[in-house]
Amino acid sequence: MSAEARVSQDVLARLAGVIESRRAGDPAKSYVARLFAKGEDAILKKIGEEATETVMACKDGVPGKIVAEVADLWFHSMLALAAHGLKPADVLAELERREGLSGLEEFALRKSSERDQEERR
Amino acid sequence: MSAEARVSQDVLARLAGVIESRRAGDPAKSYVARLFAKGEDAILKKIGEEATETVMACKDGVPGKIVAEVADLWFHSMLALAAHGLKPADVLAELERREGLSGLEEFALRKSSERDQEERR
Amino acid sequence: MSAEARVSQDVLARLAGVIESRRAGDPAKSYVARLFAKGEDAILKKIGEEATETVMACKDGVPGKIVAEVADLWFHSMLALAAHGLKPADVLAELERREGLSGLEEFALRKSSERDQEERR
Amino acid sequence: MSAEARVSQDVLARLAGVIESRRAGDPAKSYVARLFAKGEDAILKKIGEEATETVMACKDGVPGKIVAEVADLWFHSMLALAAHGLKPADVLAELERREGLSGLEEFALRKSSERDQEERR
Repeated sequence: MSAEARVSQDVLARLAGVIESRRAGDPAKSYVARLFAKGEDAILKKIGEEATETVMACKDGVPGKIVAEVADLWFHSMLALAAHGLKPADVLAELERREGLSGLEEFALRKSSERDQEERR
Repeated sequence: MSAEARVSQDVLARLAGVIESRRAGDPAKSYVARLFAKGEDAILKKIGEEATETVMACKDGVPGKIVAEVADLWFHSMLALAAHGLKPADVLAELERREGLSGLEEFALRKSSERDQEERR
Repeated sequence: MSAEARVSQDVLARLAGVIESRRAGDPAKSYVARLFAKGEDAILKKIGEEATETVMACKDGVPGKIVAEVADLWFHSMLALAAHGLKPADVLAELERREGLSGLEEFALRKSSERDQEERR
Repeated sequence: MSAEARVSQDVLARLAGVIESRRAGDPAKSYVARLFAKGEDAILKKIGEEATETVMACKDGVPGKIVAEVADLWFHSMLALAAHGLKPADVLAELERREGLSGLEEFALRKSSERDQEERR
Protein backbone atom coordinates (compact mmCIF):
# COMPACT_ATOMS: atom_id res chain seq x y z
CA MET A 1 0.00 0.00 0.00
CA SER A 2 1.40 3.36 -0.96
CA ALA A 3 2.00 6.07 1.62
CA GLU A 4 -0.49 8.19 -0.28
CA ALA A 5 -3.22 5.55 -0.02
CA ARG A 6 -2.48 5.15 3.66
CA VAL A 7 -2.86 8.88 4.26
CA SER A 8 -6.07 8.95 2.21
CA GLN A 9 -7.67 6.14 4.17
CA ASP A 10 -6.79 8.03 7.30
CA VAL A 11 -8.96 10.90 6.10
CA LEU A 12 -12.31 9.11 6.41
CA ALA A 13 -11.41 7.50 9.74
CA ARG A 14 -10.00 10.73 11.15
CA LEU A 15 -12.91 12.73 9.76
CA ALA A 16 -15.34 10.38 11.54
CA GLY A 17 -13.30 10.89 14.71
CA VAL A 18 -13.34 14.66 14.37
CA ILE A 19 -17.11 14.58 13.76
CA GLU A 20 -17.58 12.53 16.94
CA SER A 21 -15.47 14.95 18.96
CA ARG A 22 -17.32 17.98 17.61
CA ARG A 23 -20.95 16.92 17.53
CA ALA A 24 -21.64 17.65 21.18
CA GLY A 25 -19.47 20.79 21.17
CA ASP A 26 -20.36 24.47 21.19
CA PRO A 27 -22.70 25.31 18.28
CA ALA A 28 -21.32 28.84 18.28
CA LYS A 29 -17.85 27.54 17.45
CA SER A 30 -18.38 24.44 15.37
CA TYR A 31 -20.32 23.89 12.13
CA VAL A 32 -20.72 20.20 13.05
CA ALA A 33 -22.10 21.00 16.51
CA ARG A 34 -24.42 23.59 14.96
CA LEU A 35 -25.93 21.07 12.53
CA PHE A 36 -26.36 18.45 15.27
CA ALA A 37 -27.95 21.05 17.56
CA LYS A 38 -30.49 21.86 14.87
CA GLY A 39 -31.43 18.22 14.59
CA GLU A 40 -31.21 15.49 11.97
CA ASP A 41 -33.49 17.23 9.46
CA ALA A 42 -30.91 20.00 9.09
CA ILE A 43 -28.28 17.38 8.20
CA LEU A 44 -30.60 15.57 5.76
CA LYS A 45 -31.52 18.86 4.09
CA LYS A 46 -27.81 19.45 3.48
CA ILE A 47 -27.55 16.03 1.77
CA GLY A 48 -30.28 17.05 -0.69
CA GLU A 49 -28.61 20.41 -1.19
CA GLU A 50 -25.10 19.04 -1.72
CA ALA A 51 -26.39 16.33 -4.09
CA THR A 52 -27.98 19.10 -6.16
CA GLU A 53 -24.77 21.10 -6.09
CA THR A 54 -22.81 18.01 -7.19
CA VAL A 55 -25.17 17.62 -10.16
CA MET A 56 -24.77 21.30 -11.07
CA ALA A 57 -20.98 21.13 -10.75
CA CYS A 58 -20.93 18.12 -13.10
CA LYS A 59 -23.13 19.97 -15.61
CA ASP A 60 -20.68 22.89 -15.40
CA GLY A 61 -17.81 20.44 -15.88
CA VAL A 62 -15.35 22.26 -13.60
CA PRO A 63 -13.17 19.55 -11.97
CA GLY A 64 -12.27 21.56 -8.84
CA LYS A 65 -15.92 22.36 -8.22
CA ILE A 66 -16.97 18.72 -8.75
CA VAL A 67 -14.39 17.51 -6.23
CA ALA A 68 -15.44 20.18 -3.69
CA GLU A 69 -19.14 19.32 -4.02
CA VAL A 70 -18.62 15.54 -3.79
CA ALA A 71 -16.47 16.22 -0.70
CA ASP A 72 -19.37 18.24 0.77
CA LEU A 73 -21.80 15.44 -0.12
CA TRP A 74 -19.66 12.72 1.45
CA PHE A 75 -18.98 14.89 4.50
CA HIS A 76 -22.67 15.51 5.16
CA SER A 77 -23.43 11.80 4.51
CA MET A 78 -20.93 11.08 7.26
CA LEU A 79 -22.82 13.40 9.61
CA ALA A 80 -26.00 11.42 8.85
CA LEU A 81 -24.14 8.16 9.49
CA ALA A 82 -22.84 9.56 12.79
CA ALA A 83 -26.37 10.61 13.79
CA HIS A 84 -27.29 6.91 13.58
CA GLY A 85 -24.16 5.55 15.26
CA LEU A 86 -22.73 4.41 11.91
CA LYS A 87 -19.28 4.93 10.43
CA PRO A 88 -17.79 5.35 6.94
CA ALA A 89 -16.19 1.94 7.52
CA ASP A 90 -19.71 0.45 7.44
CA VAL A 91 -20.28 1.97 4.00
CA LEU A 92 -16.88 0.79 2.77
CA ALA A 93 -17.65 -2.72 4.06
CA GLU A 94 -20.98 -2.68 2.20
CA LEU A 95 -19.26 -1.53 -1.01
CA GLU A 96 -16.66 -4.25 -0.56
CA ARG A 97 -19.28 -6.90 0.14
CA ARG A 98 -21.09 -6.07 -3.11
CA GLU A 99 -17.90 -5.89 -5.06
CA GLY A 100 -16.75 -9.17 -3.60
CA LEU A 101 -19.98 -10.86 -4.64
CA SER A 102 -19.31 -10.55 -8.35
CA GLY A 103 -17.12 -7.59 -9.09
CA LEU A 104 -19.82 -4.92 -8.69
CA GLU A 105 -22.44 -6.69 -10.69
CA GLU A 106 -24.65 -6.97 -7.64
CA PHE A 107 -25.54 -3.35 -8.36
CA ALA A 108 -26.90 -4.45 -11.70
CA LEU A 109 -28.63 -7.47 -10.21
CA ARG A 110 -30.28 -5.48 -7.46
CA LYS A 111 -31.40 -2.74 -9.83
CA SER A 112 -32.59 -5.20 -12.47
CA SER A 113 -34.55 -7.10 -9.90
CA GLU A 114 -36.17 -3.87 -8.71
CA ARG A 115 -37.03 -3.07 -12.29
CA ASP A 116 -38.44 -6.56 -12.78
CA GLN A 117 -40.64 -6.10 -9.75
CA GLU A 118 -41.68 -2.77 -11.19
CA GLU A 119 -42.60 -4.46 -14.45
CA ARG A 120 -44.58 -7.16 -12.75
CA ARG A 121 -46.75 -4.80 -10.77
CA MET B 1 -2.67 1.26 10.42
CA SER B 2 -4.90 -1.71 11.11
CA ALA B 3 -5.42 -4.50 8.59
CA GLU B 4 -9.10 -3.57 8.58
CA ALA B 5 -8.38 0.04 7.69
CA ARG B 6 -6.03 -1.11 4.95
CA VAL B 7 -8.71 -3.36 3.46
CA SER B 8 -11.27 -0.55 3.72
CA GLN B 9 -9.09 1.92 1.88
CA ASP B 10 -8.62 -0.69 -0.81
CA VAL B 11 -12.36 -0.68 -1.43
CA LEU B 12 -12.55 2.86 -2.86
CA ALA B 13 -9.39 2.42 -4.91
CA ARG B 14 -10.47 -0.99 -6.22
CA LEU B 15 -13.99 0.24 -6.84
CA ALA B 16 -12.61 3.10 -8.94
CA GLY B 17 -10.54 0.53 -10.82
CA VAL B 18 -13.53 -1.72 -11.44
CA ILE B 19 -15.57 1.28 -12.65
CA GLU B 20 -12.79 2.17 -15.10
CA SER B 21 -12.64 -1.39 -16.40
CA ARG B 22 -16.42 -1.61 -16.82
CA ARG B 23 -17.42 1.79 -18.20
CA ALA B 24 -16.60 0.99 -21.80
CA GLY B 25 -17.91 -2.58 -21.51
CA ASP B 26 -21.07 -4.23 -22.79
CA PRO B 27 -24.17 -2.33 -21.58
CA ALA B 28 -26.13 -5.58 -21.79
CA LYS B 29 -23.88 -7.16 -19.17
CA SER B 30 -22.78 -4.33 -16.91
CA TYR B 31 -24.79 -1.79 -14.91
CA VAL B 32 -21.82 0.61 -15.00
CA ALA B 33 -21.47 0.32 -18.80
CA ARG B 34 -25.24 0.79 -19.15
CA LEU B 35 -25.21 4.06 -17.19
CA PHE B 36 -22.21 5.38 -19.12
CA ALA B 37 -23.84 4.41 -22.41
CA LYS B 38 -26.93 6.41 -21.46
CA GLY B 39 -24.79 9.46 -20.80
CA GLU B 40 -23.89 11.61 -17.83
CA ASP B 41 -27.45 12.80 -17.16
CA ALA B 42 -28.42 9.23 -16.28
CA ILE B 43 -25.62 9.12 -13.70
CA LEU B 44 -26.52 12.54 -12.26
CA LYS B 45 -30.17 11.58 -12.02
CA LYS B 46 -29.10 8.58 -9.92
CA ILE B 47 -27.23 10.91 -7.55
CA GLY B 48 -30.44 12.87 -6.94
CA GLU B 49 -32.36 9.64 -6.51
CA GLU B 50 -29.89 8.02 -4.12
CA ALA B 51 -29.60 11.22 -2.06
CA THR B 52 -33.39 11.15 -1.66
CA GLU B 53 -33.28 7.48 -0.70
CA THR B 54 -30.54 8.22 1.86
CA VAL B 55 -32.76 10.91 3.39
CA MET B 56 -35.73 8.52 3.50
CA ALA B 57 -33.63 5.72 5.02
CA CYS B 58 -32.45 8.10 7.76
CA LYS B 59 -36.04 9.17 8.46
CA ASP B 60 -36.95 5.47 8.74
CA GLY B 61 -33.96 4.97 11.04
CA VAL B 62 -33.08 1.48 9.81
CA PRO B 63 -29.25 1.17 10.04
CA GLY B 64 -28.86 -1.48 7.31
CA LYS B 65 -30.93 0.60 4.91
CA ILE B 66 -28.98 3.78 5.73
CA VAL B 67 -25.66 2.04 5.04
CA ALA B 68 -26.98 0.56 1.76
CA GLU B 69 -28.28 3.93 0.54
CA VAL B 70 -25.12 5.85 1.46
CA ALA B 71 -23.16 3.11 -0.35
CA ASP B 72 -25.39 3.68 -3.42
CA LEU B 73 -24.88 7.45 -3.13
CA TRP B 74 -21.11 7.19 -2.85
CA PHE B 75 -20.97 4.61 -5.66
CA HIS B 76 -22.90 6.82 -8.07
CA SER B 77 -20.83 9.87 -7.00
CA MET B 78 -17.80 7.81 -8.04
CA LEU B 79 -19.36 7.22 -11.46
CA ALA B 80 -19.78 11.00 -11.82
CA LEU B 81 -16.16 11.51 -10.75
CA ALA B 82 -15.05 8.89 -13.30
CA ALA B 83 -17.07 10.63 -16.03
CA HIS B 84 -14.86 13.68 -15.42
CA GLY B 85 -11.56 11.80 -15.09
CA LEU B 86 -11.56 12.25 -11.31
CA LYS B 87 -10.96 9.70 -8.56
CA PRO B 88 -12.17 9.14 -5.00
CA ALA B 89 -8.59 9.95 -3.94
CA ASP B 90 -9.22 13.53 -5.16
CA VAL B 91 -12.21 13.79 -2.83
CA LEU B 92 -10.27 12.29 0.08
CA ALA B 93 -7.45 14.75 -0.59
CA GLU B 94 -9.94 17.64 -0.54
CA LEU B 95 -11.44 16.40 2.73
CA GLU B 96 -7.97 16.07 4.18
CA ARG B 97 -6.94 19.49 2.98
CA ARG B 98 -9.93 21.07 4.74
CA GLU B 99 -9.41 19.04 7.85
CA GLY B 100 -5.75 19.91 7.87
CA LEU B 101 -6.50 23.61 7.72
CA SER B 102 -8.09 23.73 11.12
CA GLY B 103 -9.62 20.42 12.01
CA LEU B 104 -12.73 20.69 9.83
CA GLU B 105 -13.53 24.23 10.76
CA GLU B 106 -12.98 25.33 7.19
CA PHE B 107 -16.47 23.91 6.56
CA ALA B 108 -17.80 26.40 9.08
CA LEU B 109 -15.67 29.21 7.70
CA ARG B 110 -16.69 28.56 4.12
CA LYS B 111 -20.37 28.28 4.99
CA SER B 112 -20.28 31.33 7.28
CA SER B 113 -18.59 33.35 4.60
CA GLU B 114 -21.23 32.25 2.07
CA ARG B 115 -23.88 33.26 4.56
CA ASP B 116 -22.19 36.60 5.11
CA GLN B 117 -22.18 37.22 1.39
CA GLU B 118 -25.84 36.27 1.38
CA GLU B 119 -26.52 38.80 4.13
CA ARG B 120 -24.63 41.54 2.38
CA ARG B 121 -26.56 41.21 -0.86
CA MET C 1 -60.92 35.86 -15.88
CA SER C 2 -59.86 34.79 -19.35
CA ALA C 3 -61.06 31.55 -20.89
CA GLU C 4 -57.44 30.46 -21.01
CA ALA C 5 -56.94 31.00 -17.29
CA ARG C 6 -60.16 29.15 -16.59
CA VAL C 7 -58.99 26.15 -18.60
CA SER C 8 -55.58 26.24 -16.90
CA GLN C 9 -57.07 26.22 -13.43
CA ASP C 10 -59.14 23.29 -14.47
CA VAL C 11 -55.99 21.32 -15.17
CA LEU C 12 -54.83 21.08 -11.53
CA ALA C 13 -58.32 20.36 -10.25
CA ARG C 14 -59.01 17.77 -12.96
CA LEU C 15 -55.57 16.26 -12.54
CA ALA C 16 -56.24 15.82 -8.81
CA GLY C 17 -59.54 14.19 -9.74
CA VAL C 18 -57.91 11.84 -12.22
CA ILE C 19 -55.26 10.91 -9.63
CA GLU C 20 -58.01 10.10 -7.12
CA SER C 21 -59.84 7.93 -9.65
CA ARG C 22 -56.66 6.06 -10.64
CA ARG C 23 -54.84 5.52 -7.36
CA ALA C 24 -56.78 2.41 -6.36
CA GLY C 25 -56.92 1.11 -9.92
CA ASP C 26 -55.09 -1.73 -11.65
CA PRO C 27 -51.31 -1.29 -11.30
CA ALA C 28 -50.86 -3.16 -14.57
CA LYS C 29 -52.78 -0.49 -16.44
CA SER C 30 -52.10 2.75 -14.60
CA TYR C 31 -48.83 4.49 -13.76
CA VAL C 32 -50.58 6.26 -10.85
CA ALA C 33 -51.95 2.99 -9.44
CA ARG C 34 -48.53 1.39 -9.86
CA LEU C 35 -46.79 4.10 -7.81
CA PHE C 36 -49.44 3.96 -5.08
CA ALA C 37 -49.21 0.16 -4.98
CA LYS C 38 -45.46 0.42 -4.43
CA GLY C 39 -46.01 2.73 -1.47
CA GLU C 40 -45.25 6.32 -0.59
CA ASP C 41 -41.46 5.93 -0.74
CA ALA C 42 -41.75 5.23 -4.49
CA ILE C 43 -43.61 8.53 -4.92
CA LEU C 44 -41.13 10.47 -2.77
CA LYS C 45 -38.20 8.99 -4.65
CA LYS C 46 -39.75 10.32 -7.87
CA ILE C 47 -39.92 13.82 -6.32
CA GLY C 48 -36.17 13.71 -5.70
CA GLU C 49 -35.58 12.37 -9.19
CA GLU C 50 -37.78 14.91 -10.97
CA ALA C 51 -36.30 17.79 -8.94
CA THR C 52 -32.86 16.67 -10.14
CA GLU C 53 -34.10 16.45 -13.71
CA THR C 54 -35.59 19.94 -13.42
CA VAL C 55 -32.21 21.25 -12.28
CA MET C 56 -30.46 19.49 -15.19
CA ALA C 57 -33.00 20.77 -17.72
CA CYS C 58 -32.43 24.34 -16.47
CA LYS C 59 -28.66 23.90 -16.75
CA ASP C 60 -29.20 22.68 -20.33
CA GLY C 61 -31.46 25.68 -20.94
CA VAL C 62 -33.89 23.89 -23.26
CA PRO C 63 -37.35 25.46 -22.63
CA GLY C 64 -39.40 22.43 -23.72
CA LYS C 65 -37.38 20.17 -21.45
CA ILE C 66 -37.69 22.58 -18.51
CA VAL C 67 -41.48 22.73 -18.88
CA ALA C 68 -41.71 18.91 -19.16
CA GLU C 69 -39.57 18.36 -16.04
CA VAL C 70 -41.42 20.96 -13.93
CA ALA C 71 -44.67 19.30 -15.06
CA ASP C 72 -43.26 15.94 -13.88
CA LEU C 73 -42.19 17.52 -10.58
CA TRP C 74 -45.58 19.13 -9.94
CA PHE C 75 -47.39 15.96 -10.99
CA HIS C 76 -45.46 13.78 -8.57
CA SER C 77 -45.86 16.43 -5.81
CA MET C 78 -49.59 16.05 -6.41
CA LEU C 79 -49.31 12.29 -5.90
CA ALA C 80 -47.59 12.96 -2.55
CA LEU C 81 -50.32 15.43 -1.63
CA ALA C 82 -52.97 12.84 -2.56
CA ALA C 83 -51.21 10.21 -0.44
CA HIS C 84 -51.84 12.51 2.54
CA GLY C 85 -55.39 13.49 1.62
CA LEU C 86 -54.27 16.92 0.43
CA LYS C 87 -55.07 18.79 -2.78
CA PRO C 88 -53.30 21.27 -5.06
CA ALA C 89 -55.90 23.79 -3.86
CA ASP C 90 -54.28 23.58 -0.40
CA VAL C 91 -50.93 24.54 -1.91
CA LEU C 92 -52.48 27.37 -3.92
CA ALA C 93 -54.21 28.63 -0.77
CA GLU C 94 -50.89 28.58 1.09
CA LEU C 95 -49.19 30.49 -1.74
CA GLU C 96 -52.03 32.99 -1.73
CA ARG C 97 -51.92 33.35 2.05
CA ARG C 98 -48.22 34.23 1.90
CA GLU C 99 -48.65 36.53 -1.03
CA GLY C 100 -51.56 38.24 0.68
CA LEU C 101 -49.51 38.90 3.76
CA SER C 102 -47.12 41.28 2.05
CA GLY C 103 -46.81 40.52 -1.59
CA LEU C 104 -44.52 37.49 -1.26
CA GLU C 105 -42.17 39.04 1.23
CA GLU C 106 -43.16 36.48 3.82
CA PHE C 107 -40.81 34.14 1.95
CA ALA C 108 -38.00 36.56 2.70
CA LEU C 109 -39.11 37.03 6.29
CA ARG C 110 -39.38 33.33 6.94
CA LYS C 111 -36.03 32.56 5.36
CA SER C 112 -34.31 35.51 7.09
CA SER C 113 -35.68 34.46 10.41
CA GLU C 114 -34.41 30.92 9.84
CA ARG C 115 -31.05 32.35 8.97
CA ASP C 116 -31.09 34.50 12.09
CA GLN C 117 -31.80 31.47 14.20
CA GLU C 118 -28.96 29.74 12.44
CA GLU C 119 -26.66 32.65 13.32
CA ARG C 120 -27.70 32.67 16.94
CA ARG C 121 -26.97 29.01 17.53
CA MET D 1 -66.37 27.38 -12.02
CA SER D 2 -66.55 28.14 -8.33
CA ALA D 3 -65.39 31.44 -6.88
CA GLU D 4 -62.84 29.48 -4.88
CA ALA D 5 -61.35 27.89 -7.97
CA ARG D 6 -61.21 31.26 -9.67
CA VAL D 7 -59.32 32.77 -6.75
CA SER D 8 -56.96 29.79 -6.64
CA GLN D 9 -56.12 30.05 -10.32
CA ASP D 10 -55.36 33.70 -9.77
CA VAL D 11 -52.65 32.71 -7.31
CA LEU D 12 -50.27 31.14 -9.86
CA ALA D 13 -50.85 33.91 -12.41
CA ARG D 14 -50.51 36.66 -9.82
CA LEU D 15 -47.50 34.94 -8.24
CA ALA D 16 -45.80 34.86 -11.66
CA GLY D 17 -46.60 38.56 -12.01
CA VAL D 18 -45.19 39.39 -8.59
CA ILE D 19 -42.02 37.39 -9.38
CA GLU D 20 -41.59 39.37 -12.62
CA SER D 21 -42.03 42.68 -10.79
CA ARG D 22 -39.56 41.71 -8.05
CA ARG D 23 -36.77 39.93 -9.89
CA ALA D 24 -34.92 43.08 -10.93
CA GLY D 25 -35.66 44.84 -7.63
CA ASP D 26 -33.46 45.63 -4.67
CA PRO D 27 -31.80 42.45 -3.33
CA ALA D 28 -31.67 44.05 0.10
CA LYS D 29 -35.45 44.27 0.22
CA SER D 30 -36.70 41.30 -1.77
CA TYR D 31 -36.03 37.58 -1.40
CA VAL D 32 -36.86 37.10 -5.10
CA ALA D 33 -34.45 39.83 -6.20
CA ARG D 34 -31.79 38.38 -3.90
CA LEU D 35 -32.02 34.92 -5.47
CA PHE D 36 -31.96 36.34 -9.00
CA ALA D 37 -28.97 38.53 -8.09
CA LYS D 38 -27.09 35.44 -6.90
CA GLY D 39 -27.72 33.71 -10.21
CA GLU D 40 -29.62 30.69 -11.44
CA ASP D 41 -27.56 28.16 -9.47
CA ALA D 42 -28.92 29.68 -6.24
CA ILE D 43 -32.46 29.10 -7.49
CA LEU D 44 -31.72 25.55 -8.63
CA LYS D 45 -30.07 24.73 -5.32
CA LYS D 46 -33.30 25.79 -3.61
CA ILE D 47 -35.27 23.36 -5.81
CA GLY D 48 -33.09 20.49 -4.59
CA GLU D 49 -33.42 21.71 -1.02
CA GLU D 50 -37.20 22.17 -1.09
CA ALA D 51 -37.69 18.79 -2.81
CA THR D 52 -35.75 17.20 0.06
CA GLU D 53 -37.84 19.11 2.60
CA THR D 54 -41.03 17.97 0.85
CA VAL D 55 -39.84 14.36 1.14
CA MET D 56 -39.03 14.82 4.83
CA ALA D 57 -42.38 16.50 5.54
CA CYS D 58 -44.16 13.56 3.90
CA LYS D 59 -42.15 11.08 5.98
CA ASP D 60 -43.15 13.09 9.08
CA GLY D 61 -46.75 13.03 7.87
CA VAL D 62 -47.66 16.50 9.14
CA PRO D 63 -50.21 17.94 6.67
CA GLY D 64 -49.45 21.62 7.35
CA LYS D 65 -45.74 21.01 6.86
CA ILE D 66 -46.34 19.06 3.63
CA VAL D 67 -48.44 21.87 2.18
CA ALA D 68 -45.85 24.49 3.20
CA GLU D 69 -42.98 22.53 1.64
CA VAL D 70 -44.81 21.78 -1.62
CA ALA D 71 -45.67 25.51 -1.76
CA ASP D 72 -41.95 26.29 -1.36
CA LEU D 73 -41.09 23.73 -4.05
CA TRP D 74 -43.63 25.10 -6.53
CA PHE D 75 -42.63 28.68 -5.74
CA HIS D 76 -38.95 28.04 -6.42
CA SER D 77 -39.86 26.06 -9.57
CA MET D 78 -41.66 29.19 -10.71
CA LEU D 79 -38.49 31.23 -10.14
CA ALA D 80 -36.61 28.75 -12.37
CA LEU D 81 -39.35 29.04 -15.00
CA ALA D 82 -39.13 32.84 -14.81
CA ALA D 83 -35.34 32.68 -15.22
CA HIS D 84 -35.99 31.04 -18.60
CA GLY D 85 -38.87 33.28 -19.68
CA LEU D 86 -41.42 30.57 -18.92
CA LYS D 87 -44.66 30.75 -16.98
CA PRO D 88 -46.71 28.41 -14.77
CA ALA D 89 -49.29 28.48 -17.57
CA ASP D 90 -46.76 26.61 -19.75
CA VAL D 91 -46.56 23.86 -17.14
CA LEU D 92 -50.34 23.72 -16.78
CA ALA D 93 -50.66 23.49 -20.58
CA GLU D 94 -48.16 20.62 -20.62
CA LEU D 95 -50.07 18.81 -17.86
CA GLU D 96 -53.32 19.37 -19.76
CA ARG D 97 -51.79 18.18 -23.02
CA ARG D 98 -50.72 14.92 -21.40
CA GLU D 99 -53.99 14.48 -19.62
CA GLY D 100 -55.88 15.17 -22.82
CA LEU D 101 -53.98 12.51 -24.68
CA SER D 102 -55.42 9.66 -22.68
CA GLY D 103 -56.40 10.76 -19.24
CA LEU D 104 -52.91 10.88 -17.74
CA GLU D 105 -51.75 7.59 -19.13
CA GLU D 106 -49.14 9.31 -21.23
CA PHE D 107 -47.12 9.48 -18.00
CA ALA D 108 -47.19 5.70 -17.94
CA LEU D 109 -46.44 5.43 -21.64
CA ARG D 110 -43.52 7.81 -21.49
CA LYS D 111 -42.04 6.14 -18.42
CA SER D 112 -42.60 2.64 -19.80
CA SER D 113 -40.96 3.60 -23.03
CA GLU D 114 -37.98 5.02 -21.14
CA ARG D 115 -37.79 1.79 -19.21
CA ASP D 116 -37.97 -0.21 -22.38
CA GLN D 117 -35.09 1.74 -23.80
CA GLU D 118 -33.26 1.11 -20.57
CA GLU D 119 -33.89 -2.59 -20.94
CA ARG D 120 -32.74 -2.65 -24.51
CA ARG D 121 -29.42 -1.03 -23.82
